[in-house]
Amino acid sequence: MSRHFDSAEGLCEDRDPATHGFVFNQTMLRIADPERSLDFYTRVMGMTLLKRLDFEQMEFSLYFLTAGDDFSDISDEDARRTQQTFGRPAMLELTHNWNDTAENTRYHNGNSEPKGFGHIGFHVPDLEQACARFDKLDVPFQKRPDDGSMKGIAFIKDPDDYWIEIFDATRVNEVCKPHLKG
Amino acid sequence: MSRHFDSAEGLCEDRDPATHGFVFNQTMLRIADPERSLDFYTRVMGMTLLKRLDFEQMEFSLYFLTAGDDFSDISDEDARRTQQTFGRPAMLELTHNWNDTAENTRYHNGNSEPKGFGHIGFHVPDLEQACARFDKLDVPFQKRPDDGSMKGIAFIKDPDDYWIEIFDATRVNEVCKPHLKG
Repeated sequence: MSRHFDSAEGLCEDRDPATHGFVFNQTMLRIADPERSLDFYTRVMGMTLLKRLDFEQMEFSLYFLTAGDDFSDISDEDARRTQQTFGRPAMLELTHNWNDTAENTRYHNGNSEPKGFGHIGFHVPDLEQACARFDKLDVPFQKRPDDGSMKGIAFIKDPDDYWIEIFDATRVNEVCKPHLKG
Repeated sequence: MSRHFDSAEGLCEDRDPATHGFVFNQTMLRIADPERSLDFYTRVMGMTLLKRLDFEQMEFSLYFLTAGDDFSDISDEDARRTQQTFGRPAMLELTHNWNDTAENTRYHNGNSEPKGFGHIGFHVPDLEQACARFDKLDVPFQKRPDDGSMKGIAFIKDPDDYWIEIFDATRVNEVCKPHLKG
């Protein structure tokens, strides 16, 4: 019995016990303007700021955001909350170097040369409703749900031009199926 | 009472109910060689492959990996598992375009010009033990725990040279404290 749910070359079947307790905690993106990005990720995407860390001598700030509806487990006590922030899965870490501004800085989103990082992605409970709302809020689209051959999946752009894929998890199977092997 | 746990300019205090149920699901990175990357993320990092999607006409494959110890909720039924994969937080999505190989492709990790994406990050229960093991497995380090001024945090590099921050959440507060404002 495989510990994986699909097969592929390279998969390690015997999990090293030394990896137990590893948590995929964070994805870090550089931002040019924290006010602009925090507005976007909290107002448009509904995320919550769990922790902010300001490094005075090194002149940068980190903003740790999370999605979700229930934060009753999160402590108001500073040190404890730092521990929770770094121990929790799916944190978005926005890094602002204090000398960066929207005027002097343009970060690279990884989807033109040189390519690398592609996007972050959100499940939404209702894709059409979510996209109509993004439109109303003047969020730019990279791809609308009806564009291209992958109908039912959208890409919006955050204030630094990073791509955010938007999909309804209950519909991804039908979206992908016509394109899949076998 | 703020819905955020720290203050900053730009934070939206009244959460739009339309964002309820949004899940920060995925971080997508392009990879040159799936065998090499799957070996790394499953053997070295202990992740589990939940779903693989092969897009035949478009000639790319997606590999969805997750950290964690308990997958008893994950279905063996294909369509249901796709839904679970896209509805779950903290999935790492590796994209392989079929014409890419380790020989012909070098992806950009975002930490040299043009900058953008920075890293993904893992909490580990024992930093020294984890780093000694990475060394034994010949994983390259970008920064060892004792390098630089931020003692107690490490950065390793994945097979495509993407940076992975390694930290023990219970110790981040002490690591950061000497550098923080106030």
